[in-house]
Amino acid sequence: MTPHDTLQLFAKTLANLEQWMDKAQAYAKERSFDVDVLAQARLAPDQFTFAQQVQSACDQAKYAAAYLGGKPAPSHPDTEKTFAELRERIRKCASFLATVQAPDLGGAEQRKVAPPWLEGRWLPGNDYLVHVAVPNFFFHATTAYAILRHNGVPLGKMDFIGSLPTRDAEA
Amino acid sequence: MTPHDTLQLFAKTLANLEQWMDKAQAYAKERSFDVDVLAQARLAPDQFTFAQQVQSACDQAKYAAAYLGGKPAPSHPDTEKTFAELRERIRKCASFLATVQAPDLGGAEQRKVAPPWLEGRWLPGNDYLVHVAVPNFFFHATTAYAILRHNGVPLGKMDFIGSLPTRDAEA
Repeated sequence: MTPHDTLQLFAKTLANLEQWMDKAQAYAKERSFDVDVLAQARLAPDQFTFAQQVQSACDQAKYAAAYLGGKPAPSHPDTEKTFAELRERIRKCASFLATVQAPDLGGAEQRKVAPPWLEGRWLPGNDYLVHVAVPNFFFHATTAYAILRHNGVPLGKMDFIGSLPTRDAEA
Repeated sequence: MTPHDTLQLFAKTLANLEQWMDKAQAYAKERSFDVDVLAQARLAPDQFTFAQQVQSACDQAKYAAAYLGGKPAPSHPDTEKTFAELRERIRKCASFLATVQAPDLGGAEQRKVAPPWLEGRWLPGNDYLVHVAVPNFFFHATTAYAILRHNGVPLGKMDFIGSLPTRDAEA
């Protein structure tokens, strides 16, 4: 699982997330409620809302791409309140992810990653992916999914996972 | 992120999960309810319970270790109903993960992985980790966490992530 594989997995999961949002919008229409109510839904009063989970998933992917690819992270202020704005946030993130390609990631596993919240300490790029980016990204993506699921949106695990690049028995 | 890194991340997260269960037990004691009620809790009526999420997280880790390490997966029937039984399940899984070490994983990324549910199709080991094991493992671990969080257990994100192997600025 190269750093490029990891970024592609994040991009795939964000594309899947847009499909969960499609299903949430269809469900809201069918039940005649404003889908943007779900943007403010949460599973516990002191936990992030759906909107904040989406923003956080995007940021985990964005910072992984920036730190590992050695590019500055674009600024995306957390101002989104609606599904339309969250979709735009996801697309901005996906566009940035697409700018970090395999050649940018040469030596990324050994690169020093020192985000401000580590206050001067650092992690090698590989440890950053293993211990920070992967678990945090999936934490926020899964919690976003769980908030929709808890509110009745008809989602199943294959919506979470998306397509699999399986091979024929003969290959 | 080598296959061995991935298995170690799963083992770390399962150890973290035992700590969420410690906090759930302390919370149940403080509020005078039977913690095993939480084993049957879920976020939606047609979603897996906490017990099933723990079983599924364990199985994702176990099968990744077995398929990538070329070892038979031990059978762990999904019979657990209590926190004590779920802890035993986690420990059995952790013990098996510990048997698959870096030397067992040579060539694992190219190994053909053909689980029965792919019905004759297959994935190279690396694709199995990227597209199946990592997202599924974190899906179930995060949903287990979310079920406890939704039921009032005082958990925060660092409980999910656990310790980070950060380095000194001088290193």
